[in-house]
Amino acid sequence: MGKKIVIALGGNALGKNLPEQMTAVKKTAAAIADLIEDHHEVVIVHGNGPQVGMIQNAMTLLSRSEPDKYGFTPLSVCVALSQGYIGYDLQNSLKEELLDRGIRKECATVLTQVEVDLNDPAFEHPEKPIGAFMTKEEAEALSSKQGFQVAEDAGRGYRQVVASPKPKAIIELETIRSLMETDHIVIACGGGGIPVYHSSAHHLKGAAAVIDKDFAAECLAEALDADFLIILTAVEKVAIHFGKPDEEWLSRLTPAEAEKYIKAGEFAPGSMLPKVQAAVKFAGSAPGRKALITLLEKARDGISGKTGTLITAE
Amino acid sequence: MGKKIVIALGGNALGKNLPEQMTAVKKTAAAIADLIEDHHEVVIVHGNGPQVGMIQNAMTLLSRSEPDKYGFTPLSVCVALSQGYIGYDLQNSLKEELLDRGIRKECATVLTQVEVDLNDPAFEHPEKPIGAFMTKEEAEALSSKQGFQVAEDAGRGYRQVVASPKPKAIIELETIRSLMETDHIVIACGGGGIPVYHSSAHHLKGAAAVIDKDFAAECLAEALDADFLIILTAVEKVAIHFGKPDEEWLSRLTPAEAEKYIKAGEFAPGSMLPKVQAAVKFAGSAPGRKALITLLEKARDGISGKTGTLITAE
Repeated sequence: MGKKIVIALGGNALGKNLPEQMTAVKKTAAAIADLIEDHHEVVIVHGNGPQVGMIQNAMTLLSRSEPDKYGFTPLSVCVALSQGYIGYDLQNSLKEELLDRGIRKECATVLTQVEVDLNDPAFEHPEKPIGAFMTKEEAEALSSKQGFQVAEDAGRGYRQVVASPKPKAIIELETIRSLMETDHIVIACGGGGIPVYHSSAHHLKGAAAVIDKDFAAECLAEALDADFLIILTAVEKVAIHFGKPDEEWLSRLTPAEAEKYIKAGEFAPGSMLPKVQAAVKFAGSAPGRKALITLLEKARDGISGKTGTLITAE
Repeated sequence: MGKKIVIALGGNALGKNLPEQMTAVKKTAAAIADLIEDHHEVVIVHGNGPQVGMIQNAMTLLSRSEPDKYGFTPLSVCVALSQGYIGYDLQNSLKEELLDRGIRKECATVLTQVEVDLNDPAFEHPEKPIGAFMTKEEAEALSSKQGFQVAEDAGRGYRQVVASPKPKAIIELETIRSLMETDHIVIACGGGGIPVYHSSAHHLKGAAAVIDKDFAAECLAEALDADFLIILTAVEKVAIHFGKPDEEWLSRLTPAEAEKYIKAGEFAPGSMLPKVQAAVKFAGSAPGRKALITLLEKARDGISGKTGTLITAE
């Protein structure tokens, strides 16, 4: 029987530039089409780390080239731009893959805003990496010239870091629901969603942040009462003692076990940590809800129990 | 009784930069909310002339700053980016205005692709102005340095010009329909839609073009079997002998009369001409269909017959 699945797709898995993205989305489309072929109902949330950094760079160069004409482009607007940039390729690629398999389904990207809390402590401690990787020297130059905050990212080099508050609510939830009810494959909350907060009862204002796509996907999965949250990433399973001689790949975790490993510092912040945290939150949010972390290409095998790390209270 | 209305909204009416856009969309939201308050069913198509030019400039600066990392960004991708850039502000502003009036309705932006024909003669004669206005000298420099085509735009200065093929079909039509049926205010075909063509039976490829938003709105209005196509612009009515001593403002036109004035060269290409052409096409496409061209702020008065130029065969 088909399950209702929210998929969280890594921004890094979408490539670092346009040619890479066009190749990457083909692989992604095939993995998602597998699930649709198996009659699952699918909603896709994607990251935008490299893309939103690239767009922010472009808009910064533009405003520097003609400061009188173009001012500063807020990060929230850069996220909105990135939803168009990625959604276009992704919906197109997915529809093509489905048609190639003889499946006629509409694929749609919904421009999505996600509410955050301005009192979220994340605003005081920016730690979400965006943009391209840099050397230490490049990072120091960016930091001193533009005042951006930079940090070392999980051993892979330096990147700009921005605030990453937790999602509170999906503003366009009813739109996503309406499209699911009419048999659409929906791409929503791109880049974690455009971060907004209520500056008055009816006014939403953009926040200088990028919401983590795993948490946005988790928030959406709860709101849609999904059966599964699937986090697709660059490893087949979650590991403890990662990269050490006693490295151990895990097939199954209860939320309690995962919490224990989180406290022990087993997972890299900005990398595996938010994935496990989001998975734990979803699996613990109501009976029957399951989260799966696995490799993009293994989505189908993962959901049929053959691989991946399943996080479930049962 | 409420009518089904497709609104075409000028890209210039959205401002030339972000602060201008944020102010402009407030006025736009009020005009559209008037129609919703009067129980009309509304779909919004907007232009993106200044915005897509700005985004293209930004992406060009980025690729020049790091040519190895970032290649050329096709115009179709720039249109996709512009749908995020404009849709975000527009849907937000509209929802706020509706809430301020006590109306609860969902507002959603659908990332929309529009099919064009690669054999469209427009590809050989680029004439759609995009980007900021330039002096003759700036235009000549852009043309010689980057190979962009430039042209004088209706007496207002020089701008880059790109191919503007006619829309053939709205790829995400069923998505727009589904949302209308569930009582959404839909923003679709932003910037005339992301121009695509079938490079194989299932594959859509981006085209180096910007579709005119008036024609895209007309195409959508026909496909949705709308009652009204409303083209909102910077003048209250269509004029003949525009700017001359015998200038005459028109309240009503049949498609045949309009065709006669078009042939006589009464309307400026890239400005009033595509508006009148789109209006004529819609009014002539089926009995009972009407088109209205008027000032943004006069939308409500226009639809109740108090002002504007009504194009109707009846």
